[in-house]
Amino acid sequence: MQDPSAPHLNVLDLAATRGDGVFETISVGGAAPQALEHHLRRFAASAAMLDLPAPDSATWRQAIRMVIAHLDSTSALTNGAEAWVKTVLTRGIEGDGRPTGWVYGTLSGDFSSERTTGIRVVTLDRGFRHDVAATSPWLLAGAKTLSYAVNRAVAREATRRDADDVLFVSSDGILLEGPTSTLITRTGDRLCTPGPDLGILDGTTQASIFRFAESRGMSTLSAHLSVDDLAASDAAWLVSSVRLAAPIRAIDGIPFAVDTDFSAAMNAFLLAQRE
Amino acid sequence: MQDPSAPHLNVLDLAATRGDGVFETISVGGAAPQALEHHLRRFAASAAMLDLPAPDSATWRQAIRMVIAHLDSTSALTNGAEAWVKTVLTRGIEGDGRPTGWVYGTLSGDFSSERTTGIRVVTLDRGFRHDVAATSPWLLAGAKTLSYAVNRAVAREATRRDADDVLFVSSDGILLEGPTSTLITRTGDRLCTPGPDLGILDGTTQASIFRFAESRGMSTLSAHLSVDDLAASDAAWLVSSVRLAAPIRAIDGIPFAVDTDFSAAMNAFLLAQRE
Repeated sequence: MQDPSAPHLNVLDLAATRGDGVFETISVGGAAPQALEHHLRRFAASAAMLDLPAPDSATWRQAIRMVIAHLDSTSALTNGAEAWVKTVLTRGIEGDGRPTGWVYGTLSGDFSSERTTGIRVVTLDRGFRHDVAATSPWLLAGAKTLSYAVNRAVAREATRRDADDVLFVSSDGILLEGPTSTLITRTGDRLCTPGPDLGILDGTTQASIFRFAESRGMSTLSAHLSVDDLAASDAAWLVSSVRLAAPIRAIDGIPFAVDTDFSAAMNAFLLAQRE
Repeated sequence: MQDPSAPHLNVLDLAATRGDGVFETISVGGAAPQALEHHLRRFAASAAMLDLPAPDSATWRQAIRMVIAHLDSTSALTNGAEAWVKTVLTRGIEGDGRPTGWVYGTLSGDFSSERTTGIRVVTLDRGFRHDVAATSPWLLAGAKTLSYAVNRAVAREATRRDADDVLFVSSDGILLEGPTSTLITRTGDRLCTPGPDLGILDGTTQASIFRFAESRGMSTLSAHLSVDDLAASDAAWLVSSVRLAAPIRAIDGIPFAVDTDFSAAMNAFLLAQRE
């Protein structure tokens, strides 16, 4: 355990000079990491896409549990308190050939408004064609890397457009994902999410929600969706590990209906889920 | 001055978690920073594209000179010794609202082979259309950011293809730049470089070379070039601050003629240039 306010990293670490590493953000509820094994699989997949050494899952699992235990001893992760941990693996100091890794944890902010009232999103061009992961794997589409300057820039662009979040669109008009979230739409009893062939992250929260929906008799599928498909759906959400399911209440400035009941059901499920 | 081997950065610094910052790499010859004012202008332009506070040029200039003086006192930057300094400005620790900045310096590697024998390049899709800087500024095309995981990934792809470096091509077939360099072609007495409208870096070394060529009566221009244009040119180089002018000796596995004399003339000029 390290003092969170101390310096930890050398300025030659490739995390700091090249954004050359991968990460996961894992929510913690009831002092347990949520969807941990899915996150660890995705962490390993991102590392492989960057030709980083395979993370040793047992070591990371142990480090995550140590950080959560420390958080719990200082902040009491009970009575519904939410927290998150972040795992980071970098290529290390240039020339050393030894990766750097750490786990950081803290209490979550309050996302009750985003989960109920919802969020206003704007659609922004991601620049890439929808098939870029297949044609140009060196662009690292679908890896959760530390090179997130664009994900930060689009959040500022959303603010300039009086919105709360962003939905990326491919250069050929296919909906992709949010900068830190996955899209889910509902049409009747069917949930839909953009397909895994699109060079986007394999959503851990989206997967949990699909299992929940299927247990209630709903159908689920992956597909290619346009902005028109989204606008024609009955409801939609950006879902992510820490904010959970945030209903979309406006798309590019046009109001969009919030499904209050299913938003509440999904978030209750995600908060109650323990593994 | 800090111990280079010590820890310096907090793991919550947005450089390390989001690649959220900008940098410049400035070569040092004869204990003087090369093209310093051009680098500082580009540093400020990158910061503006990321909505970072404007770097105070006088402070950075002073920090750069202090690092060079320290290098000179320990490594004797005389008799042709080459070195480089890197300036980094990050958004700082998330939530603090205070940027982090540092200057790092070290002696350069030996690039004599790259400058004479030359380099084998492969052309790789950058994923973006050539006009993305104009249509989608949030993609930060043309900013020198810390989010360079793709620039590192393409270097590994080049190695897999038995090449030394990469030349990015837009998704619509226009030559862009190298991951850390600028393209220059020569056709007769005319030098050409990809245009400033392409969402690429404003090359500091390319600008120096154009001034040199003009002083010798050559003409220079910016234009849109295809791979066929490159293959039809008399010679070509990837130019950058530290490696200087590296003649291209193969393009996608096909041998390409090296202009030994002009390569030598450019590199002699760049090494002799002092401001």
